Amino acid sequence: MEQRLSVVTLGVADVARARAFYEKLGWKARGPTSGEVAFFQTGGLVLALYGGKDMARDAGVGTADPAGHGIVLAHNVREKDEVAALVDAWKTAGGSVTKAPADTSWGGHAACVADPDGHLWEIAWNPFWPLGENGEVSLP
Amino acid sequence: MEQRLSVVTLGVADVARARAFYEKLGWKARGPTSGEVAFFQTGGLVLALYGGKDMARDAGVGTADPAGHGIVLAHNVREKDEVAALVDAWKTAGGSVTKAPADTSWGGHAACVADPDGHLWEIAWNPFWPLGENGEVSLP
Repeated sequence: MEQRLSVVTLGVADVARARAFYEKLGWKARGPTSGEVAFFQTGGLVLALYGGKDMARDAGVGTADPAGHGIVLAHNVREKDEVAALVDAWKTAGGSVTKAPADTSWGGHAACVADPDGHLWEIAWNPFWPLGENGEVSLP
Repeated sequence: MEQRLSVVTLGVADVARARAFYEKLGWKARGPTSGEVAFFQTGGLVLALYGGKDMARDAGVGTADPAGHGIVLAHNVREKDEVAALVDAWKTAGGSVTKAPADTSWGGHAACVADPDGHLWEIAWNPFWPLGENGEVSLP
């Protein structure tokens, strides 16, 4: 597994409210304006705001945190078949799988895994966000 | 507030165990070997592993999560007096302060703030980790 982080997703109660907060701090969102999600380019990675309940569902975990205060980290890969390979590596290292590799509603392919402390990582292939030479993510 | 992320700290139950897990995935830690913390350079930011209880104490929050599964994001600044200025901007935007700006045990100056969903951000001046031109952090 390459040593990098692609996305940090903050689970929030209300995406519009959370987006407005970060915009008041001077940040500028880029990408979809549907209101379901907000993306901020932060160096070579993306900080995302997403409904906490949707995030828990996507990650295959319960909504033990009804306020949606969880965080999911993501590690994006270059090729679709790397998702399954990384999930295997994760299991070998002693991690667990909360959601097996599967095609996603947004046209990608992803799995969700947990480290020994329960920190969630999405392992994702996102053909719409090609990775740079050093693995950096750039919003379209 | 510049649009970037400097450190993602995962609160863990046992730093040595968590470090060994990420090392099994092929990652290489850099920096202190005291065992109290582990740092991984991930692109222009740092992923840190730190005891969850210590993390909660440093952030000025309770240990509501005894398993230490929390995450604290950090935004590092170039000058010491930027910490107080950013905390003010955070309050103006509607965030709250969990720990007022103060000198830290490791020789820096930091505060901890929370966004409207309770996500914690440390605002830190760390003279030992100078920021690059684009705000990127590089471990010494």
